[in-house]
Amino acid sequence: MVTAKAWVLKKHFDGLPKTSDFELKTIELPNLKDGELLLESVFLSVDPYMRPYSRRDMKEGDIMIGTQVARIVESKNPAFTVGAFVVGSKGWRTHFISDGKDIQLLPSNWPESLPKSLALGTVGMPGLTAYFGLLEVCKMKPGETVLVNAAAGAVGSVVGQLAKIGGCKVVGCAGSDDKVAYLKKIGFDEAFNYKTVKSLDEALRKASPDGYDCFFDNVGGEFASIAINQMKKYGRIAVCGAISQYNDSVPQKGPYVQFPMIFKELRMEGFIVSRWSDRRKEGLQALLKWVVEGKVKYHEQITEGFENMPVAFIGMLKGENLGKAIVKV
Amino acid sequence: MVTAKAWVLKKHFDGLPKTSDFELKTIELPNLKDGELLLESVFLSVDPYMRPYSRRDMKEGDIMIGTQVARIVESKNPAFTVGAFVVGSKGWRTHFISDGKDIQLLPSNWPESLPKSLALGTVGMPGLTAYFGLLEVCKMKPGETVLVNAAAGAVGSVVGQLAKIGGCKVVGCAGSDDKVAYLKKIGFDEAFNYKTVKSLDEALRKASPDGYDCFFDNVGGEFASIAINQMKKYGRIAVCGAISQYNDSVPQKGPYVQFPMIFKELRMEGFIVSRWSDRRKEGLQALLKWVVEGKVKYHEQITEGFENMPVAFIGMLKGENLGKAIVKV
Repeated sequence: MVTAKAWVLKKHFDGLPKTSDFELKTIELPNLKDGELLLESVFLSVDPYMRPYSRRDMKEGDIMIGTQVARIVESKNPAFTVGAFVVGSKGWRTHFISDGKDIQLLPSNWPESLPKSLALGTVGMPGLTAYFGLLEVCKMKPGETVLVNAAAGAVGSVVGQLAKIGGCKVVGCAGSDDKVAYLKKIGFDEAFNYKTVKSLDEALRKASPDGYDCFFDNVGGEFASIAINQMKKYGRIAVCGAISQYNDSVPQKGPYVQFPMIFKELRMEGFIVSRWSDRRKEGLQALLKWVVEGKVKYHEQITEGFENMPVAFIGMLKGENLGKAIVKV
Repeated sequence: MVTAKAWVLKKHFDGLPKTSDFELKTIELPNLKDGELLLESVFLSVDPYMRPYSRRDMKEGDIMIGTQVARIVESKNPAFTVGAFVVGSKGWRTHFISDGKDIQLLPSNWPESLPKSLALGTVGMPGLTAYFGLLEVCKMKPGETVLVNAAAGAVGSVVGQLAKIGGCKVVGCAGSDDKVAYLKKIGFDEAFNYKTVKSLDEALRKASPDGYDCFFDNVGGEFASIAINQMKKYGRIAVCGAISQYNDSVPQKGPYVQFPMIFKELRMEGFIVSRWSDRRKEGLQALLKWVVEGKVKYHEQITEGFENMPVAFIGMLKGENLGKAIVKV
């Protein structure tokens, strides 16, 4: 018999989550039935979407939602070998049982040299979000100018690099000088610290005086309201996230969007990456290839210890991570 | 020599336009050169877009922008016969000279029985706006539910009827009980007076408890902010106009749009009908056919006298018109 640890939402978040909003529980797992597997989480992901989804999809007492890379430690299912690694979305837990239908083996051509944690980042959901958001929502074309915010984050850093691969000029914004230096290192044409510029409007204008064809928005709020006025005619805005709004206890207001939408004939589209789950393999293989070739670089912010999941999550919401925020069990 | 009268923007509008913001001028037209035509406006259009465009594209002293149906009264161009009717966008003037390149003859199959003023409404720019907005922006499909506001206006009334032809359920809102009665008469499935309902949110919910696939937005502002929360997953919002915002001296604010955009994966697109100018003939012929067959009904609010253009324009902005607001010279 195995005892799993799990983090539970003790109290719905009000504003920025606090460690006291979480509770660590233990769960006794039953013995495996035929066809089942026992898995042990090795890396867990903390992602911005967990904040708004906690309010929408969870009740107090539920195990926190989330994705992990897990190792098969016992198998009564001939399709799965002990020692293999999978990606699952089983929430914040150290161990779990699966019938094999709700987990996915890492791609068989995953190189030994590559950290398996990348399956939660650049070669996982955040990478796929960048891939499909740029290709299918922004519909970027070579020669265009792409703006991305939260650009040093798990999604944003991939967005910028894929846009470069796609022949675009890329402008990125982030919240520290270290992050900005990182963006320049990985190939962004322009990057600035939105927290220290005098005027975001001026900084965006300086970075691309002709405006933006594509805007991959991870931030929403005031940033989005300013950026929308710098879109070019027929510009496309991919609304991926709104991290600036996630911790608002009272919904904030901003300028109505209709005027720029009409006069510049803009298209704005919200999306969730699961829309393209039937093309998951295509996306992962493209990302894996670029990572192996060194065309897409990655950085991970690894927090050690399952007990630190709430701290890692809160830190990520505060923008403390460079690249993908990961917890190593 | 002909003396034309023209309405000039004397003073940029502040809030709702006032008659004192306009000035009537006279212009002496020169004699025609070879290749030129003299035209006399017969019907002039007053449209919502003129309000925001006056601020963007005009300076004080400019002739008001706008479109007319005009009769050729003199021709030194063999391609144009005296007595023929054309559509021109020559602003608020009684007479003008053209080289034939900036005007378009009415379709040659225009029935004698049909008012030529329809070339400014249902079989003109507003009709095309409804046609391309529904087909190309909303991408409506049979069986879907379409919401349109300002539904008794020049564009909205055509939107509703085209959506019915396209096999959709149609919900329309307007600002008087007479307009609502008209909407029901021309085939809207549900219609209500947004000014007298207790709660717009509830009224929209009652009209379509499952929500809306398409939202053809002529109004913007608070209406749009409420409607966006009642879109179905993958809903499409065609942002055509924002008449509720046109007279704001200070831009108003509303809830940020990112949350519903993301969680319902909505697409919102602003558009101007001139985008499809290469398909103008296709659109006009489709509209003409439906009008002749009686499948699309029309109503015109005709103000007599060129001297009343400002009054007609202001009345239209206040929502006093049922159907297309037209001035007959």
